[in-house]
Amino acid sequence: MKLYFATGTCALASHIALEEAGAEYSTVRINFATSEQRSPEYLAINPKGRVPSLVTDKGILTETPAMLAYIAQSYPKAKLAPLEDAFRFAEVQAFNSYLCSTVHVAHAHRMRGYRWVDDPSAIDAMKKKVPETVAACFELVESKMLQGPWVMGETYTICDPYLFTLAQWMEGDGVDPARFPKVSAHRDRMAERPAVRKVVAAEKG
Amino acid sequence: MKLYFATGTCALASHIALEEAGAEYSTVRINFATSEQRSPEYLAINPKGRVPSLVTDKGILTETPAMLAYIAQSYPKAKLAPLEDAFRFAEVQAFNSYLCSTVHVAHAHRMRGYRWVDDPSAIDAMKKKVPETVAACFELVESKMLQGPWVMGETYTICDPYLFTLAQWMEGDGVDPARFPKVSAHRDRMAERPAVRKVVAAEKG
Repeated sequence: MKLYFATGTCALASHIALEEAGAEYSTVRINFATSEQRSPEYLAINPKGRVPSLVTDKGILTETPAMLAYIAQSYPKAKLAPLEDAFRFAEVQAFNSYLCSTVHVAHAHRMRGYRWVDDPSAIDAMKKKVPETVAACFELVESKMLQGPWVMGETYTICDPYLFTLAQWMEGDGVDPARFPKVSAHRDRMAERPAVRKVVAAEKG
Repeated sequence: MKLYFATGTCALASHIALEEAGAEYSTVRINFATSEQRSPEYLAINPKGRVPSLVTDKGILTETPAMLAYIAQSYPKAKLAPLEDAFRFAEVQAFNSYLCSTVHVAHAHRMRGYRWVDDPSAIDAMKKKVPETVAACFELVESKMLQGPWVMGETYTICDPYLFTLAQWMEGDGVDPARFPKVSAHRDRMAERPAVRKVVAAEKG
């Protein structure tokens, strides 16, 4: 498999999952500074002009929750998702869907407000609320979702690299991680995993 | 299973899927006009204060993509997802994730702008861009995703009720469906299905 990523993006979640799965994979770095994600070459891979994209021998996948589930299903021995239990699998998916459609979206209003508004003063108004909206998301993760030590409890799953990835953005979003001790402890626990250390170093290049 | 829904929301997708699956289910209508979704009783079911929620004998699920996949997995005879083919299943999930995290989010900036901004003039500025952002989403669905006659090609899947649900909102979002003949034909095709007719009538009450 070949993962297209950019540093500091949600592609980190799939990158960690590939590493944890023991997959044979390669990576291609997309340079956002030169808008490479909107080059004709990249748009041919992912017409959305976003990362991540995962090129497999069966075709190309996008969207982090779908990619994470596919990695878990493709490497069942790594046990990255409760594949035999449809309800537990659905809980994994619900958590990842919340990260994708609510937490990531709240965060995106800081740097990508132009997606939803043209007026520069409205873009500034959006930025102002990001610390509040992102904190509200992590409050819910902290109090209702993160079971500990891993998201789904005793077993490490594809929820963990995804939460770790989005939790990296808290400080930049003006959210004090100290407000969320369980999320912070999870972030520290993740950072110690050999696969995470390796991938984080590789993305820094 | 028991589905909590509100009329005119994305809960319609799961409602249709339950009907298509031949599931035994009941529904509970949540009244947004009285903010019932933020009542203590409902928050005990879904702390996000949103619909849909699906109460099952194993626990409660939220998030449309997760619920749709769970319905498909719980009623495999209905063949609502390519469960035996991990890559095709991932393609289904990627489509549904796009609807959830990009199309629904673009739409939400019209009526729910207060989620991301406090300033009333910024909320107005958001509303102004919705016809453009929602149209851009449907342009991508039309040109790159919807295979026809169903989203995934010849086989009806959980992608179809979800696309149908979000396509209902085009006119309200200031998007002319005539610009998207494949999406419009899909919407018409869906509206003719007995399960869809039954569920749409039931939601109207």
